[in-house]
Amino acid sequence: MRSRRPIVLVVGGGFAGLAAARALRGADADVALLDRQNHHVFQPLLYQVATASLSPANISAPIRSTLRGVGACQVVLANVVGVDVEAKRVLVDEGSVPYDYLVLAAGVRHDYFGRDEWAGVAPGLKTIEDATEIRRRMLLAFESAEHEGDAASRRAALTFAIVGGGPTGVELAGAIKGIASKTLPKEYRNIDTTTARVILFEGGPRLLGGFPEASSQRALQDLERMGVEVRLGALVSDVRTDAVVVGDETIGVQNVFWAAGVKASPIAETLGAPLDRAGRVIVGEDLSVPDRPEIFVVGDLASFTPEGSGRALPGVAQVAMQMGKHAGGVIREEIAGRGAAARARAFRYRDRGSMAVIGKNRAIAVLGEKEFSGFVAWSLWACVHVAFLVGFRNRLRVMLSWVFNWVWNSHDARLIVGEAKLRVRQPEGPGFEPAERPPGS
Amino acid sequence: MRSRRPIVLVVGGGFAGLAAARALRGADADVALLDRQNHHVFQPLLYQVATASLSPANISAPIRSTLRGVGACQVVLANVVGVDVEAKRVLVDEGSVPYDYLVLAAGVRHDYFGRDEWAGVAPGLKTIEDATEIRRRMLLAFESAEHEGDAASRRAALTFAIVGGGPTGVELAGAIKGIASKTLPKEYRNIDTTTARVILFEGGPRLLGGFPEASSQRALQDLERMGVEVRLGALVSDVRTDAVVVGDETIGVQNVFWAAGVKASPIAETLGAPLDRAGRVIVGEDLSVPDRPEIFVVGDLASFTPEGSGRALPGVAQVAMQMGKHAGGVIREEIAGRGAAARARAFRYRDRGSMAVIGKNRAIAVLGEKEFSGFVAWSLWACVHVAFLVGFRNRLRVMLSWVFNWVWNSHDARLIVGEAKLRVRQPEGPGFEPAERPPGS
Repeated sequence: MRSRRPIVLVVGGGFAGLAAARALRGADADVALLDRQNHHVFQPLLYQVATASLSPANISAPIRSTLRGVGACQVVLANVVGVDVEAKRVLVDEGSVPYDYLVLAAGVRHDYFGRDEWAGVAPGLKTIEDATEIRRRMLLAFESAEHEGDAASRRAALTFAIVGGGPTGVELAGAIKGIASKTLPKEYRNIDTTTARVILFEGGPRLLGGFPEASSQRALQDLERMGVEVRLGALVSDVRTDAVVVGDETIGVQNVFWAAGVKASPIAETLGAPLDRAGRVIVGEDLSVPDRPEIFVVGDLASFTPEGSGRALPGVAQVAMQMGKHAGGVIREEIAGRGAAARARAFRYRDRGSMAVIGKNRAIAVLGEKEFSGFVAWSLWACVHVAFLVGFRNRLRVMLSWVFNWVWNSHDARLIVGEAKLRVRQPEGPGFEPAERPPGS
Repeated sequence: MRSRRPIVLVVGGGFAGLAAARALRGADADVALLDRQNHHVFQPLLYQVATASLSPANISAPIRSTLRGVGACQVVLANVVGVDVEAKRVLVDEGSVPYDYLVLAAGVRHDYFGRDEWAGVAPGLKTIEDATEIRRRMLLAFESAEHEGDAASRRAALTFAIVGGGPTGVELAGAIKGIASKTLPKEYRNIDTTTARVILFEGGPRLLGGFPEASSQRALQDLERMGVEVRLGALVSDVRTDAVVVGDETIGVQNVFWAAGVKASPIAETLGAPLDRAGRVIVGEDLSVPDRPEIFVVGDLASFTPEGSGRALPGVAQVAMQMGKHAGGVIREEIAGRGAAARARAFRYRDRGSMAVIGKNRAIAVLGEKEFSGFVAWSLWACVHVAFLVGFRNRLRVMLSWVFNWVWNSHDARLIVGEAKLRVRQPEGPGFEPAERPPGS
């Protein structure tokens, strides 16, 4: 049986999965990466696709190209639905694939606090499709407002609610306010887009919970200075197609975007391993599953609490990359016969800092003990994100777009793709005399 | 009644509609442009989106931005369904909008020779959505082939049929062959993408029917040298999900792309005006509809036969722009009280030449009496297309992408968006021993 090379399957082409595949370079094994998409997405810039600054392809790279230089790694487009841990097989739509080692990096999805019916109303931001859907809805809202005769409906079309005050929520809120106040004003006749309301709801006591207190404070100030309404300690109790309910207040709003909870990929449940409250797999010090040394879980799907810290590592790109690299390294060493030493070395996360953009020239950056804000943090953010973007050519494209955005406040990817139907209650003709206004629908 | 300013409606934001709106600049009228999309698409480069060279936003511009500098022109996102010529109203989904002048530039759609059931199987190339759908199918075909164990199905996945040998068909065929032979070869393990078959079917006796004979000949030679199979005088009699039938030959093929006939937008029928065989509106010398001097039809939807020529002008960007400009000008003059002179001046098309790209460094260009081919024509083509692209920033983006494509043979927009399910008949595991191959689905 052991005459053949061991098979290592990596499930997921996000930061964790790619890092694992790269760490397996040179291993004496057949390595395959399975993902249901053909492309890796650079998630930290997804909000810029949602707000029409960048094109989807600018922040994506075909997984095949990305791993082209990586030895014997195969890439398989497949929808993984579970794991048969006894048979050591990954279950895909078309059948199953055997493994000797498994690195599960299947990530997380949105969690609507058990209110799954909100999903259709309040899209979240995890995939390219999510981003273009948010972009579509945001752009359509301004078009609706332009031709809406009913004052309350027009107000609702010009109101955007964002639920969740982590980095994604903060970045989305800032960017939408920016496009409304800087890019669009000259293009509409009947509405003043600078009056658009952007409301950011956060259930906890402060924004950017993972950042130091002072940075949270600064983010709040900056957002409010830009005109974003921030509601802290605000628990959303209902999300409807025309309103959002917070406490005893009902706010008319056409668009709600979701940046709050996450829950684990359902694949996690099929492992039969202990899960945390969000359904993530609790992993050991070597990132493997208890009693299943051949299965590693990395990235957002893993719940890893460093010794001495009472808190699991956050679901961010840096953690994912380091976990993937560690797990891939352990497997490579074990295959090479140096497993004991590799297993004994616990995973240690090296926090290189956190960043969040708030608006043009405004960001928050925490590097070690140092906290930065304003233009300095914004420049740091831009450099780091361009540097980590996959692909030299995309780096140039993104830089070019950022220069355009910075100089002209442009958002050139303002493309409504898919259904472009206005949600107008009382349509107003294109500025003609009221007597000739078209009849309401 | 005549105390108010006249209302001019332009239906369609393509080349013809935009040119009409621009020509109406400064007219003492309320001008509105209606389109069901928020963006103008630079159609001549659509095939590059379909073949993953450019991103959708690179060749699109929000109609609002495009017309921002154009005086009193309003932009309305609305789906026009017809015209009530007696009441002088344009019918939209939400009601109707009155006009004093109407410029109809609603374009054409694909025509499947009456076989509408082929539409789902063989997508055409008119919109951004069409282009990303063709891109999705093309990329999925290579992924399917990579994991297809059945030889005939693998062959079919690696075969692309294009129906229609006009510029779109020629450009699509050349680009698909290019991506298969230059960009993809290093990325697949189990297949040799250079063996992909691209078959171009043309019903007539030569390619590029609108071009001089010699250019058609050269296009044929160039395509065949690149490895594209060209079948002239080949009438497709059936299009199935797994094959295409031509004469008594059935060719196994997973993907068929449609670049053959067009038919007029159904709005044309509601005018009650004479139509040509393709349903296009036959217009008079001033581009207005017979007996309806207030209605102009321009662009692909118009059938205009210049005096002395026995042939209607082709549906290309240049004709559309010149028609739109002419119609807008006549209306502007008439509103200014100089209608008689403007109406008396018949529309005259100035042919500035035609071009079609075949592949890297290969194109066909006809300028007046001169015919160019090869690298010279290709350079001309690139310059002209960048120059006419809407928006300075998109020009830079497209040039940058073309430099990348030229130097590295890159196609960076290789993004499968939407359903990414393989069509595999006999799935093969990711290169492992046959004994452990996953069971067929």
